[in-house]
This record gives sequence, C-alpha cells and structure tokens, in this order.
Amino acid sequence: MKKIGLAVLFFLMMGQLLADDGHQLWLRYDPVEEEALRADYISQIQNFNVPGEGATFDLIREELGLGLEKMLLSEIAESQTEEASLLVVLSDHTRVSRSDISKETLSSLGEEGYLIRSNEQNQILLTANTPLGLYYGTFHFLRRLQTRQSINDLDIVSVPKVETRMLNHWDNLDRTSERGYAGFAIWDWHRLPDYLDPIYAEYARANASLGINATVPINVNSNALILTPMYLEKVKALADVFRPYGIKMYLTARFSAPVQIGGLKTADPLDPAVANWWKEKVDEIYEYVPDFGGFLVKANSEGQPGPHDYGRNHADGANMMAKALAPHGGKVIWRAFVYSEENPEDRHKQANDQFVPLDGQFEDNVLIQVKNGAIDFQPREPFHPLFGAMNKTNLAMEFQITQEYLGQATQLVFMGPYYKECLDSDTGIKNKNSLVSDVIDGSAYQQKHTLMAGVANIGTDRNWTGHLFGQSNWYAFGRLAWDPDISAQQIADEWVKMTFGADKKVEETIKSIMMESREAAVNYMTPLGLHHLMATGHHYGPGPWVSNLGRPEWNPVYYHRADKEGIGFDRTESGSNAIGQYNKSVAKRFSSLKTCPEKYLLWFHHVSWDYQMQSGNILWDELALRYQQGVNQVRDFKSQWATLEGKVDDGRFEHVRMLLNIQEKEAIWWKDSSLLYFQTFSERAFPDGIEKPKGTLDYYKNLRFPLAPGIRPQW
Amino acid sequence: MKKIGLAVLFFLMMGQLLADDGHQLWLRYDPVEEEALRADYISQIQNFNVPGEGATFDLIREELGLGLEKMLLSEIAESQTEEASLLVVLSDHTRVSRSDISKETLSSLGEEGYLIRSNEQNQILLTANTPLGLYYGTFHFLRRLQTRQSINDLDIVSVPKVETRMLNHWDNLDRTSERGYAGFAIWDWHRLPDYLDPIYAEYARANASLGINATVPINVNSNALILTPMYLEKVKALADVFRPYGIKMYLTARFSAPVQIGGLKTADPLDPAVANWWKEKVDEIYEYVPDFGGFLVKANSEGQPGPHDYGRNHADGANMMAKALAPHGGKVIWRAFVYSEENPEDRHKQANDQFVPLDGQFEDNVLIQVKNGAIDFQPREPFHPLFGAMNKTNLAMEFQITQEYLGQATQLVFMGPYYKECLDSDTGIKNKNSLVSDVIDGSAYQQKHTLMAGVANIGTDRNWTGHLFGQSNWYAFGRLAWDPDISAQQIADEWVKMTFGADKKVEETIKSIMMESREAAVNYMTPLGLHHLMATGHHYGPGPWVSNLGRPEWNPVYYHRADKEGIGFDRTESGSNAIGQYNKSVAKRFSSLKTCPEKYLLWFHHVSWDYQMQSGNILWDELALRYQQGVNQVRDFKSQWATLEGKVDDGRFEHVRMLLNIQEKEAIWWKDSSLLYFQTFSERAFPDGIEKPKGTLDYYKNLRFPLAPGIRPQW
Repeated sequence: MKKIGLAVLFFLMMGQLLADDGHQLWLRYDPVEEEALRADYISQIQNFNVPGEGATFDLIREELGLGLEKMLLSEIAESQTEEASLLVVLSDHTRVSRSDISKETLSSLGEEGYLIRSNEQNQILLTANTPLGLYYGTFHFLRRLQTRQSINDLDIVSVPKVETRMLNHWDNLDRTSERGYAGFAIWDWHRLPDYLDPIYAEYARANASLGINATVPINVNSNALILTPMYLEKVKALADVFRPYGIKMYLTARFSAPVQIGGLKTADPLDPAVANWWKEKVDEIYEYVPDFGGFLVKANSEGQPGPHDYGRNHADGANMMAKALAPHGGKVIWRAFVYSEENPEDRHKQANDQFVPLDGQFEDNVLIQVKNGAIDFQPREPFHPLFGAMNKTNLAMEFQITQEYLGQATQLVFMGPYYKECLDSDTGIKNKNSLVSDVIDGSAYQQKHTLMAGVANIGTDRNWTGHLFGQSNWYAFGRLAWDPDISAQQIADEWVKMTFGADKKVEETIKSIMMESREAAVNYMTPLGLHHLMATGHHYGPGPWVSNLGRPEWNPVYYHRADKEGIGFDRTESGSNAIGQYNKSVAKRFSSLKTCPEKYLLWFHHVSWDYQMQSGNILWDELALRYQQGVNQVRDFKSQWATLEGKVDDGRFEHVRMLLNIQEKEAIWWKDSSLLYFQTFSERAFPDGIEKPKGTLDYYKNLRFPLAPGIRPQW
Repeated sequence: MKKIGLAVLFFLMMGQLLADDGHQLWLRYDPVEEEALRADYISQIQNFNVPGEGATFDLIREELGLGLEKMLLSEIAESQTEEASLLVVLSDHTRVSRSDISKETLSSLGEEGYLIRSNEQNQILLTANTPLGLYYGTFHFLRRLQTRQSINDLDIVSVPKVETRMLNHWDNLDRTSERGYAGFAIWDWHRLPDYLDPIYAEYARANASLGINATVPINVNSNALILTPMYLEKVKALADVFRPYGIKMYLTARFSAPVQIGGLKTADPLDPAVANWWKEKVDEIYEYVPDFGGFLVKANSEGQPGPHDYGRNHADGANMMAKALAPHGGKVIWRAFVYSEENPEDRHKQANDQFVPLDGQFEDNVLIQVKNGAIDFQPREPFHPLFGAMNKTNLAMEFQITQEYLGQATQLVFMGPYYKECLDSDTGIKNKNSLVSDVIDGSAYQQKHTLMAGVANIGTDRNWTGHLFGQSNWYAFGRLAWDPDISAQQIADEWVKMTFGADKKVEETIKSIMMESREAAVNYMTPLGLHHLMATGHHYGPGPWVSNLGRPEWNPVYYHRADKEGIGFDRTESGSNAIGQYNKSVAKRFSSLKTCPEKYLLWFHHVSWDYQMQSGNILWDELALRYQQGVNQVRDFKSQWATLEGKVDDGRFEHVRMLLNIQEKEAIWWKDSSLLYFQTFSERAFPDGIEKPKGTLDYYKNLRFPLAPGIRPQW
C-alpha cells in the first residue's frame, strides 16, 4: 500500500465533495464493496506482470494498475516476473508456447482476439497475438471485476465477429454537429495540431474499452477542406493520439473535392485526371497517416455531389476511390442512404432500386454501409431490405447512436433492444445463417470485409452524451459491434453495474427502466408502425400535420397517410410494393394483415380506424391507448427513479430526475398533439383512460423551436 | 476530523490520478503546506458560527466549511454559539451592536460591503448589512488564507467602489459565441428552464467570489426571441439560480423588437405605441424576474437597429426604455460603440461626436457604456476621450476580457496591466479626481450610477476560458470592478497563489511571465501605437496588407497608413484631429512628437521611417526590433515555464506548454509577415538582431483560416 500523507488524503477527499458529473463513463472502477468478494479477488490477483515495450503496453499497465487499485482498494503491485498471479503476454512468449494452448487456438485469435485462462500454476494468463489484443483482453478482465463475476477457472476466448467497429461523427469542422445533442464537437480543429486536448486520449481509451477500432471524426456531409494540407496536419496529430489505442482514422471524402480544392473542371469518376487526382491525394494522406483507414462517402443523396452528376453509377464512383486506396490497404465505405429528391418512388424502395443491380460490381475493398431501416433511424423500423438482397457485396450496418428521432438528449431511451431487434431479424435468405447479424458478420455470405458503424452521440457535454443514459447506447453499440449475439439484457446488466455499482436495488431499478424505455418512446411517438412524424428540420417534437414542404417525402403526411377511412402507408402490392423488395418468406409475412407484426402494422398497411386489433380494441382506440401508455410508462420511470434518491450520488440523481421531468412533458406533448391531429381524421372519441389534452391542436401546431439543437440554426 | 474508511480514502485517491483540468479556477483551496502557518491558522479558527436563514447563508456555511477544511486539512466545526472563533453575522446582531463598531462605519458598508475585525474576545467578527455582504466577506477571509496572509489583528473594511460589476456574454441563443474562444456558450437555452446545468451555479459562485453582481448572458447583437414568453421562462430559471449568489440578470434588447415580435409597424422611440409596448414588455419581464436589472443596448452600430432609423438620437432611444424600467428600479445601459459605416469621419471621433452633445439629456437610470479606447479593444489603446468629455452623464467602462485582439485562446496574456493602464490614465479634467477610474467610480462627477462591464471569456471548455491563464483576466476584471485602485501586481500575486499555490519558485516564475506578457503581445503584434492590423472577420493573426474591404475603416491600411515616407495615423490638427477631443493638457501631450509617449506614437502621428527614437534607433529599426523582442519574450516564457515541470501538476503544465509553443509560432508569424509587409514601404534592410523570416510575404498573405473561432464560420 502506498504511504499517503494526511494532507494528501484530505486534499483528495475534498475534491470529491462535488457531485459526480458522469465523465468517467463505465470506466469508474468503483470499489468492490462486497468485502468477501473483494478479498477473494485480491487473493487471486496479488500482482501482475506485463512484459512488453511500446505505447500500447504502457496503456495496459496503466489500465490494470488504475482499475485494480480502485476496485480492490489495495495497490496491486506490478511485478517484473512471469510468476505474477496475472500475466499478460503476447502469444510468442515461452509461457504460452510451453502451455497446452494449441496453435490453432492462438491462430484463431487473429489480430484482435484474446484468450484468458487460469492455468495449473494458479496463474491467470492473458494472451493475444498483438498488443491491441492484450489491451482488449485487459478491459475484458477488468470488466469481470466491475460486473462482480468470478475469476476462478477462467477459460475465455474472445474474437471480434466484425472486422471494423467504427464511430461516425456527424461533426462539422466548425464544431457544430448535425444531429448532435451533447453540446458541440469535441474536435478542436482550430488548435490542432499543436494543442492536443486531453479529451482525445480519453475518447480513444473509452472506445478501446469496447473494442471500437475505427473512427470518422467528421460529417458525412463533408467539407473538402479536410483534405487540404493544413487540415491533414491536424488529422495526423489526432491519428497519432489514437494509434496506441487501436483506433484507425478514416475521413469522409467530398466527391466534388477534385473541383473544389484540386482545380479540376470535373469530378467525373471515369475521367483519368480525376482518378489520378484521388490517387495522388490518397498517397499524400498516407504520408501523414501511414495506417489511414480509408474514406466514408455520402454521394448523390440530400444534395451531396456524386457520380450521378456525371451520368455514372455508385460502383463507378466507389471503385475509382477504391483503386486509389487499395495499394495502401485502405477501404471505401459507400453509404446506401441515397434517396433522391427528384424520384417519385416510395423512398423506402430507392436504395434497393439503385444498389441491387450493382451487386458484384464493387471492388473488394468497397463496403456498402446500410442504415438499419429503409427510411431513417425511426423509433421503430423493420430491417432494411438490402440486407437480404445482395450477396456478392460487402454489406455493412449503420446504426444511429445519437437519438435524432428518439428524444435527442432529453429522453432516456436505451437502444440495446433497438439494435438487437434489427440484428436478430430473419432476412429470409436461404442459408442457415439468415439473420441480419449473419449478413453483417459475414457468416451468411463470407463477404471479405465486415463493418458496423454507429453515428456517435458524443459531444462537449461533461458527461459526453448529454443525457447520462446516452452512455449506455455508446456502450451497447460497441459491445454489439464486437459480438452482435450478446443480448440487450446482458449489455444493460454490464453497463448498470459498471456505471452505478452492484447494489441490487439500484441495479434492478435502472435495468427495469432501461429495458422498457425504447417501447415507451415508440408508444408516445410513433406506435404501431407509424414513422417520420417529427417536426421539420430539427426533428424535435411532433409535427404529424406538416404538409407544406417542397417534396412529398419531406412531409409527415406522406408517411402516415391518415384519412377518414384509416391510417398507414400501404406498401403491399396494392400500394408501393416496397414489401416486394424483401425475400419471399419475409414479404409474405409482412404482406398479410394477419401475419404482419402489429408493431409494423401501419408501416406496411393502410388500416381502417375500426380494424380489430389483437387486444380486442379497434385500431383508433388501440392507437390512443398506446400513446397514453407511453406517457404512463414515463411516469413510472419517474417514480422508479425517485426511489434511488440517496442511493445514486446527488449529481447523477438530479441530472436524470430533471431530464425525466422533461421527458414526461415531451411525452404528453407527443400524445396530446398526435391524438388531437389524428382525431380530425378518425372523428372518434377517445376511449376511456385517455387523459384530456392540455392544449388545443392549434396551440401545438403553432409551437416553434427555431434553435433546437442538431442542425445549424435557421433563425 | 472525520472518520474515513480506508475504502473511501483509496477511492478518493484514485479519482485524483487524472491530471488537473483547471476547472476549479482560483477556488481550489489547496492545503496550506507550510506546517507552522497552518497550525497558526487552525489555532485561530477552531470553529465558526453563521447564524442566519436563507439560501445565501447556506452558501456562506458551505463555502467556509469547504474552504477551511481543504486548506487546513482539518474539519473546522460549525458551531451553534456566537462564541465561535469566527462569527459571521448581520450588523443588527447584538454582538455587533454591543461592540465598539460605530453606526457610521456600519452604515458605510451599504448593501454589499463588509467588515472583518479581530475583537477583544480573541474572536474574528465578520459583519455586513446584508447576507450578500457577508458572502463577499467570506470570500475575502478565505482569500487571506489562500494567499498566506496573517489573520491576526484583522481590521478590514471593504466596500465596492463601483455599483454594478457586470459580465457581458457575447453569446448567441444557438450557443455560438461572437468572440468566444473557449468552446461554446455555457447557456443551454434548449434544455432550460427544466434542466438546470450545474455549471450555472458554479458560474455564479465564481463570480460572487470576485464581487461580480450582474450578468448579461446574451449577445449585444441581440435576438428579439429572448423577449418572448418561451425564453423569458428560461431567463427566469437562470435568474433563480443566480439570485442567492447576488448575481442580477440583465438582458440585451433589440431595438426593433416591437416590430419583430410585437407586431408593430415601427420601433420609433417617440411613437406612443412603441413606448407602451416596451412598458408592457418590461412589466411582463418583472413578473418573471422581480429583481431584473435592465437592458443592455447596442443601437445604430454595425448594422444593429436603433433610434437613428427613425431620425431620433441616442437619448430619445435610451430614455424611452429608461422610463419603462424606472418604476421597477431597472436601468438602461446604452453602448457608446456606435461608429457608422456611412460616416467618413475618423472612426476614433464618432462616439464623441454623437454623445458629447447629448450630455445631460439622459434619464437618471441610463448609463453610457464606453469601451476603454476609441477604436476597439486593441492590444494597446489610449483611453477613450469620452471619459473626459461628459460630466452630466452616468459613464461606464466596457473592458474586453475575451482576447479578441490579444491572441484569443492560444496566447498567454495577463490583462491586469492593460486594465490598469486605462484606469490610471489622467483625463485632464479639472478635478482632483481626474483619472479614468475616478470617472468610473463616480468620484470625479458624483454620477448617480456606476458600472464596470467586462466582455466575458467564458465557454464550455473544461477550464472555462480556453487558455488556463484566461482565468487570470476574469479574476483581474472582477477584482478591479470592486476596487479599480488595486495594482496589477497584487492581482497577479493573489491569482497565482490561489491557482498554483505558494511555492516561491512557482509563484515568482509565473508572476514574471504574467507581468511581461501583455508587453510581449503588443511587441509582436502592434508595437509603437500600431493598431487594427488583424486579419479580416475572425481577427486571428496578422492582415496589415488588407485593403480590399468595402469601407475604408474596415481595412488595416486605413489604420497604419504606411507609405514611402513613414507610418502611422496623423490624428493631430494636421490630420483627423481626434486628439482635439481630449482635454487640453492631454491633447497637448499627445500632439507633440516630443511629449507623446512612444507607446502611442503611431496611433497619433504619421512618422518618417528615419525618425530618431529615444533608444537612438531610427523608427524603422526600432519597429523591427520591437517585433523581434516580442518573439524573444515568448521564447523566454517558454524557457521559464519549462523550469516548472514537476512543480505544476502534469495536466496544467502540459496545457500551458503546448499553448506556449503555439504562441511562439504565432509571434513569429506576426513578426515575419508584418515586417516583410512594412519593408515594402520602408525599403530598408532589417537591423542586426532580426531573424530571417520563415516564409515570404506572399506565403503569409495567402494563409486562410475560414473556420477560426469567434464568429459564425463563413465556409
């Protein structure tokens, strides 16, 4: 144990009088308060030895020292001998080669996997083929203590199922953040490269603790300035910080960059001068960042330039960039979110229409990054039909972690169940591995490269994510990118213990709120398959009545299609037939009112107000009761949270308490305004149990939030 | 002493392994490490008693408990008896009335002053007429310990010399900040009123510790939205947080608000409907904030609407608002920064031209807020001639704390000497109290209301001010607003001890850097009275060559007027005669090349390149050597700072180290580009001692920083 002067102790104690601000995320390493368990841990971890040189090894030693000491309230000495009770070594170490671990097992670990085993010498051996693998294993080991699991008889092998596990930051170079609700971008481009904000390393560490190994720090609506030397210097400085943590740097690339910063007259991907410009630009980037990951591209979507501007297709554009990157091992990540403002077709269908014909035409190092659903990160969406429709293309997942349509940073919504709902969907492909997750992890079609991307919810707010519980979504995304088969329940369990400690009452209460939170949000915003009803631009709050925007598909009325007869978007054969893009078994299930899950009912069908639901209610009553249920659920979260006063530190308790009050107001706002509006079509009374609306429909229609965050303000 | 479990101790210790981030400002209350002194303090402060109810009393008890315990490493008990060794009581307490403190003395304390006296009972008595006075006295008392002063035989009376001590935040409602370099605005308007970020209370406490008692949280380039009910709810919530800390809420008022949000056709101040609209709006505001302070108005300047739009003058506009506020005790603060883009007159003269004729016409509750100099917060400016030119008007000071023209957040510039240079200037009025500070504190003309405002440098950056040393400027402003007669040296001494501790070596080194830092910045940016040479828009870096902007006075060439013969702006009788606006004795001194201080030489005179300076050098050589000296000074700061490694915690050491590297680069950039440019006029070689420029003039001219912070980005 360290000798600590009284002075120092008091000094330190005083620093803690401030309420907790949540900045430490899930890496708090709060003490194991259960004495017996702590004693057991200590008896098994007398000391640790991490032979190895280099920045990542330093991080491993630092993390182990910090984590063990904080959790075990005892200094766990770093030993210089391989007899230490915890040994962390590369797989070429003699201790490993002399062990009974097979070469095949070691080989299966690849570049990032790890193995943790209790050996005969009463020693815990953590090994991997790379320092990064050891670093990941270190976080795994510490997590066992954080979640109060046994460390007896360990026999763990963990290898990531997805190759690239990436955050996408929709952050502009001026630090504003499109769809950011946690303040502003953490990237202080102005003071880079010479000023390295400590947050960059903290960010990299937090990601590494989840196995996230790639980042795109700038917006897909890209600024070509990032590709100029002045900014590449800054990119290099960031990449240098990230490298020891295993975080690879990618950039977004504006398709028109050859014109904007290259002085060319065209950005036509089939023009040799354009291809050459990109080749030289890529070569230049690799001089700054030798392990540069590649480009993420949003092309011909929502006004962004792209190959269509020159009569070329997405494969022409992506392949041109891919060829420039291939010699360096770089990749192109091409987004499939490409609806066109000029195309009258159901927006739901446009990605498939454009990409399915290109299946097989993309270079090996191109990945197509597909949003989880075909519209746009709605509170609930069926899985994107592309996932069952291309088998000769590297398909990748794009989830949104930032809660653009899910209450932004004022609502508690745990997205574990959301991600799982998509990953666990059966695509109907003829394959024993037919789930969306099987497509994503490559087990369905053995695609060469795999990727899961999450649109980050990280900003300058001290707690990183605006709402403290936004941290759980970052956590859930990272864990699922490593292994899409983990359950949402397990993720919630881990996160709660790591974030709030292992008090049973606290743990159960918070998990209960979390696991119900996404259904609550769907209920008070868009129940029964309704979607895209949010207010214009900022998407803050309800706007189901909006019908005056320039293009049909910009308007919520396009999506709900309420009329005197009923409500919902007919996407069956009698309607847009978007269902026809799913594989047969799936299409069949969604097509029939009888077999279509009610949660997707109004997504795929226009249904009459008096349609009989499974509950026995008619549709109108069911819809109204769902809205009310959403409000009631939030009230229940408030009551549950209130019981934690004194059990959660004041800072975090009060933070969540205030936000739940806002969430209740917002839920009521959604319920009142939506029901009053839909009632103008249904012309039916509210069923029993529906609270009287607080305002009139006109009142709600006239609310304006010109400065709501997440887009460049318009006022 | 508290009983602290081992577990808790270790837990706390671990939290401190992270490097210090500077968030605690000057309120760290680090332990008094000198054992004897600490023992002496403890012997005199056994316990404290603060009888009194209410929010401010709670703050006093909290601050004393925290501060004493942290500094003395010993729990100083709160006693319930007035025999306590430290007694903090209102002046109507029997202990005070039975003491020998005279009624006159107590009366002189007013609403905010305090008295601290060691009495015969070996007791330290802190008294005041209000809880706020006691709160201010508490910070004073704690500061004595922080700065290692004796607390024997105390006999202190302190009363603020300026009535309103105010921060102006140039923060927009979307959280961008005009001239903000520390991230973004701390005001999260979107989540107000229901979410109260803990930063609001921290902000109020920090200000209260300096005696700052008023704030304007929004930009003088104002948005009328702030005056609508939705935002007034938010304003009320903030004001409620601030109230116990003695911080009064003011708002900026957009002159055209009656049209923009009131539905009127005009904002003519003489239109009865307009006056009535403001009266009703003011009444409404007071319903939300019963102790609302009043309006800060920027009118008819840089595109802002104002009374001139209707053929009225500033008094017409200000008085109309003043009459609406008067019944509630509110004030109008009307800015004198009113140059017009259509007026060909030397910008230096326009404020006097407009305001001097109105002297005596303003209502009692109007203050005219005047920038320290007549141009715009330049690295060095002579004092504003208005300060000697109006004696029947409430004149107030506007200083800039944010370093718009002084290196923004990448340069260490302590502004104590800057503020003092202005406050200590003799205005030449015929009065024994003839300094600028005498005008500001009312001693020159007994003006009814007094005010000192500082344009804040506070943002979302964890250390509040972007550059850690920006904290010293917030501190200096606050201390001088309370008492303009404190010296810059004393302020530096206090701030360093409170921020970095009392280690002699650390203290002397940092003070030495601070006290020289402003002269260094003047040297490498605008020596010898040069001014307004910064790049366009964002003002980041040099742009002395800029000459293509729409109006003459937008261009740096307007201000330096370099030609083959010489350099400088002739403001004598042979030129614009701006000097004629100063009182006679001052004008005489500035007019003559012999008596004009060389620091103002090129501000007031166009001087030939071979003019003989006091140093013996010709002007060209002197100018070049000053630029070089500035660079050399920054290098010296770097060397001095390097000696503090291990004596200042790693976090703050590294922060400043990186920023000093940037400052050196920026100083060289200023020197190289300015000298190369001015050399095209002087056509003279550089004297010995000037380092060869790193780039060519063309290189420097072509640098672009479209996303430099502090204005809404243009790219």
